[in-house]
Amino acid sequence: MTSGRQVTKIDVRPEWWDNIFAPSSCLVIITTVDHESRVNAAAFGTCTRVCHDPVHISFACGAVKDTARNVLATKEFVVNIVPFEQEILDRMLVCGLPFKAGINELEKAGLTPLASKTVKPPRIQECRSHFECRVAWTQPWLHRVMICGKVEAVSVDADCMDEKGYLVWEKAKPAHYCGHRYGGMFVPVYNAPTAAHWHYDGKDEEFRDDEDWRHAYSSTR
Amino acid sequence: MTSGRQVTKIDVRPEWWDNIFAPSSCLVIITTVDHESRVNAAAFGTCTRVCHDPVHISFACGAVKDTARNVLATKEFVVNIVPFEQEILDRMLVCGLPFKAGINELEKAGLTPLASKTVKPPRIQECRSHFECRVAWTQPWLHRVMICGKVEAVSVDADCMDEKGYLVWEKAKPAHYCGHRYGGMFVPVYNAPTAAHWHYDGKDEEFRDDEDWRHAYSSTR
Repeated sequence: MTSGRQVTKIDVRPEWWDNIFAPSSCLVIITTVDHESRVNAAAFGTCTRVCHDPVHISFACGAVKDTARNVLATKEFVVNIVPFEQEILDRMLVCGLPFKAGINELEKAGLTPLASKTVKPPRIQECRSHFECRVAWTQPWLHRVMICGKVEAVSVDADCMDEKGYLVWEKAKPAHYCGHRYGGMFVPVYNAPTAAHWHYDGKDEEFRDDEDWRHAYSSTR
Repeated sequence: MTSGRQVTKIDVRPEWWDNIFAPSSCLVIITTVDHESRVNAAAFGTCTRVCHDPVHISFACGAVKDTARNVLATKEFVVNIVPFEQEILDRMLVCGLPFKAGINELEKAGLTPLASKTVKPPRIQECRSHFECRVAWTQPWLHRVMICGKVEAVSVDADCMDEKGYLVWEKAKPAHYCGHRYGGMFVPVYNAPTAAHWHYDGKDEEFRDDEDWRHAYSSTR
């Protein structure tokens, strides 16, 4: 457990699921199980929210990795969003070591499994939010496989979501992976969310008939 | 043009392409052309580097959007990485307005096309790096389509890459999209790249035989 953090996990209403995967791609640990219910956990920098409604999440994975094998066998996975906190980033790297199949990386890394609501793979207590997924489709190519899951349940640390269902960025602290060539380097992706502003002297006839272009970026907030 | 920025675009050697798409997912504008060579440009928060070698990039798109239609028709697209700079973020939102097919969003937004090296869609001068792609595969589902491209050429602003082919984070200033429900909000994803550190009292027999687990995260730097 992270030092002293005692926060309740709460279930997120389906209409707020899309708000909680933010930004649209961030650092995650994905948990899966094999046919003998043995847990596997691995970190991914390729995990992205790819459909708003119904919410779908995709990630790319080496085709021979335990994660790919387990997902193809069981059709389930859990996406756990990793906070930009040194202790958890450090433990995440242990998850990523090339352990043999059947070894539980959570135990090796000192991370805590927490039963999921709708699927067999566990959530990870130390992560801030959790997306329980069932496979929608998979696409193998070269030595890789793209996996896309439909979200079935979402939960979040109580202090990371406000009363209207939006992420509390500075508590959730989403992170991202700098990339393979940068070694074990990560960036915070929650600092100073900033609005862009647009101005266009438009004519209605330039736009698609069924689109309200003047309100294209209205927040639902 | 961004105020006063006069930087040469340089071609990136193939062995450095993977370094330059960093972090592994970030905010982009994707340019395409239709069969009459009319340019389309749209911003995406779902664009991710999904294979290191050869470098592949994927993104998800509404199936009826001009981008999807153009990519399916021509098999080409260019990924332009957007810097976290107010003026460009603001213009990017104009690209995202629901213009009719055949209208050139770059003209409407005041962004500058620059001929690509290997494909028909243009690069965008104001963006920091550019990934020219040919379609590897597409996967339609629901009202969406996932598009995955093999990278054919990469170019970058000269001041955004160091002499060893690594990204100069504070010049490139990659950004990300907070998400649909947050309106036109963006986060910087280049602040303070930070190393994680791992320690594991391991035994070789816990690890796959062909893996050098002690050097699992060695940077190539």
